[in-house]
Amino acid sequence: MEKEKKFVESIASMEDDFAQWYTDIVKKAELADYASVRGCMVIRPYGYAIWENIQKILDQMFKDTDHENVYMPMFIPESLLKKEADHVKGFAPEVAWVTHGGNELLAERLCVRPTSETLFCDHYAKIIQSYNDLPKLYNQWCSVVRWEKTTRPFLRSSEFLWQEGHTAHATAEESKAETLKMLNIYATFCEETLAIPVIKGQKTEKEKFAGAKDTYTIESLMHDGKALQCGTSHNFGDGFAKAFNIQYTDKTGKLAYVHQTSWGMSTRLIGAIIMVHGDESGLVLPPAVAPIQLIIVPVALHKEGVIEKATELKDMLSKVARVKMDTSDKMAGWKFSQYEMKGVPLRLEVGPKDIEKNQVVLVRRDTREKIIVPIPELESLVPEILKDIQNSLLEKARNIQNKRTFSTTTVEELKNLLDKTLGFVDAPWCGDLACEENVKEVAGASSRCMPLDQPEKKGVCLCCGKPAKAIVTWGRAY
Amino acid sequence: MEKEKKFVESIASMEDDFAQWYTDIVKKAELADYASVRGCMVIRPYGYAIWENIQKILDQMFKDTDHENVYMPMFIPESLLKKEADHVKGFAPEVAWVTHGGNELLAERLCVRPTSETLFCDHYAKIIQSYNDLPKLYNQWCSVVRWEKTTRPFLRSSEFLWQEGHTAHATAEESKAETLKMLNIYATFCEETLAIPVIKGQKTEKEKFAGAKDTYTIESLMHDGKALQCGTSHNFGDGFAKAFNIQYTDKTGKLAYVHQTSWGMSTRLIGAIIMVHGDESGLVLPPAVAPIQLIIVPVALHKEGVIEKATELKDMLSKVARVKMDTSDKMAGWKFSQYEMKGVPLRLEVGPKDIEKNQVVLVRRDTREKIIVPIPELESLVPEILKDIQNSLLEKARNIQNKRTFSTTTVEELKNLLDKTLGFVDAPWCGDLACEENVKEVAGASSRCMPLDQPEKKGVCLCCGKPAKAIVTWGRAY
Repeated sequence: MEKEKKFVESIASMEDDFAQWYTDIVKKAELADYASVRGCMVIRPYGYAIWENIQKILDQMFKDTDHENVYMPMFIPESLLKKEADHVKGFAPEVAWVTHGGNELLAERLCVRPTSETLFCDHYAKIIQSYNDLPKLYNQWCSVVRWEKTTRPFLRSSEFLWQEGHTAHATAEESKAETLKMLNIYATFCEETLAIPVIKGQKTEKEKFAGAKDTYTIESLMHDGKALQCGTSHNFGDGFAKAFNIQYTDKTGKLAYVHQTSWGMSTRLIGAIIMVHGDESGLVLPPAVAPIQLIIVPVALHKEGVIEKATELKDMLSKVARVKMDTSDKMAGWKFSQYEMKGVPLRLEVGPKDIEKNQVVLVRRDTREKIIVPIPELESLVPEILKDIQNSLLEKARNIQNKRTFSTTTVEELKNLLDKTLGFVDAPWCGDLACEENVKEVAGASSRCMPLDQPEKKGVCLCCGKPAKAIVTWGRAY
Repeated sequence: MEKEKKFVESIASMEDDFAQWYTDIVKKAELADYASVRGCMVIRPYGYAIWENIQKILDQMFKDTDHENVYMPMFIPESLLKKEADHVKGFAPEVAWVTHGGNELLAERLCVRPTSETLFCDHYAKIIQSYNDLPKLYNQWCSVVRWEKTTRPFLRSSEFLWQEGHTAHATAEESKAETLKMLNIYATFCEETLAIPVIKGQKTEKEKFAGAKDTYTIESLMHDGKALQCGTSHNFGDGFAKAFNIQYTDKTGKLAYVHQTSWGMSTRLIGAIIMVHGDESGLVLPPAVAPIQLIIVPVALHKEGVIEKATELKDMLSKVARVKMDTSDKMAGWKFSQYEMKGVPLRLEVGPKDIEKNQVVLVRRDTREKIIVPIPELESLVPEILKDIQNSLLEKARNIQNKRTFSTTTVEELKNLLDKTLGFVDAPWCGDLACEENVKEVAGASSRCMPLDQPEKKGVCLCCGKPAKAIVTWGRAY
């Protein structure tokens, strides 16, 4: 047990130093490693396997709603990036520029895509002619590059993996409906698959995407009380269509501009999983995305019949869960810590005494609860417990979020609330940029979103006292 | 039928102009489109769906052989690329260089990965310490960039999608075994999934990968008789390990260098599918990777009960195949041509007369054979026919390859053979670069590979008459 303790002690305490605790988990759970390129990361097998599970489930949700995958080039010519004025202003300062191909200077420099609106628009202008061609519901899985000053693995890195949906529709109503449909898919995914509760809302003018008419977001609360934007969905109206001349002939024979959307989620979600569910012993993974759902640790594995029985259990349980068995020579205690660090939802211990009694010990990662289970009940019980862990994680996170969600009517109290306990604070806002900036200055909080659910009576602005246009959820963000 | 003909006539004849025929299929089957960036392509939904099927099957083959997926950065610092001398010499002339991040000039320029050996080596040097850490069996799915002068969609483009496996082993024997294991997996995949017969062999010194000790390849023959390299598997020995100082402590406590491999296949495979199976009516897809395996075209679809019956058939057949139904207003003849162009393996026609007789008409894309099938037999017959199409395509391609495979003992005859009928020509070779270059000059043929199956007695070199070291398969290549 000495060794086990030592192993656990080697990560920082989340209460003392949350940032260091986060970095320690990324390294010790073998999720990612730093690369030779500043701000870039190597996503290691265990981290990538989580991403593959995320991709698989999300991709099926996209396909079930008639979206198709495509692949666009990773380069955008400078002239193309410049076509939509707000868009280039937002992204040009943070793109990587390719200037040479082999030994030749390029006639026009190319940026490595920070996002692909301009490429999709360029393609849509070519392939959309008539109302028969609409809607176009495309998505791509790829990596993008944003030259960030300060980086942290998964949360903010110079290169990250994501999916970006890009759609074109005949009418403004349809593009708005698509924007909200995808926001809802994102929220459902976060809650049901990642066990992360989110607030759905609209971004203010200040916080919206460069080139968007409206940006919607899902916001979640991390263990330290800071807010994290988990995904965004943008309605472009016909802004990009006008810049790129994407027109179609409608049913009456008239030319009209299409209405577009885009929406994205990224490997940042892995950072959210760490920071919402993790504890002092390391990562805690929701079963739905855990690469290993159940780890079998044979105890006293050199005793007769132990490995045989463990292998038998592995074969049986592999039918109902993602199972791995560890028969390495390391001490059982070391293994316990190791798989706790890696956040494996369930551990199965089986030794000679258990075999005698035809039972095993299951240990839940989330509650540490030990459950003695007769072997004949295992196959039906394991999926039930995994389901219960999934639900418990969501419920626990929701309770924490509820406890850390406050409301106020003044900017001073907003500051006091956040200084005391970081979290979400709801407060009315008049809609003016000056007041939003004032909140930032006085309380150090940014507007996370205007939640979709808004009360009839909104009161007066927390800064200027004028009638409020919306209740805003404020917070300190990653 | 007039319209159908017109539609088909809109692609070039493969016998008259194979290159144009290829480009026409890429465009008209909606596989890919040109992008604004020179030499880059947009992979459209139908083309990307083929790639997704390729990925799914190949990825499972990798996982079944204990390989794990990871993600490395897309950028390689110049100093890292330069660490292995042969490697940088091979790739530096064709990489894209990033020189600026935002508005700042970078201290060191970065190339966009043309392949990722150097990144994997850099990572392996950090994470491999002891024999317990070996082997490392990693793979990644990503896009790479090579600044090509002349490009063609799928066959040769500035950016393409691929997988690259990178492994590290304790011994030279293990890395050689891995190299050959992956070569065999590639060959099995090409033959069983893509219905493309391949020759497995070793590349000559001249043709091997920059930095490799040995390169193995699978080579296939296109409809025009030109050869296409479909995949390669490289054994690096300890060359990269020495350049990157990747050492481990062996069981006796001594430091030793690891032995490495890498292997890759790319979206080029889609080009191979087009050029091996396609015909004058367009694409012909092997059922294993066809996004749509069976297309239902209701005939006289406004007649009572037709759409209902077609929908019923769709629901039934969706259990055993990837099925789509086309109920658009276009003429049935147009639809027939359209799905032939897209290479859908099976077409199901159902109209009022068929419904009366409780039957449908199935039409095979490969043979054009029409089969009248009683509806109750459909569910069991469709998978059987798809299997038969898959097998027939491979058999047909194998017959063509056999007919176009010749052998000779002189370089003059090699030239005459290829001038008459393009294909593979087997001929003995002494192993000297001068003779290999002579064959290129005289016969315009490159050494495709030295097939793994070599006869005892090899005769004398086709150029110099010295004793031959190997039988080489020569050809004119893409």
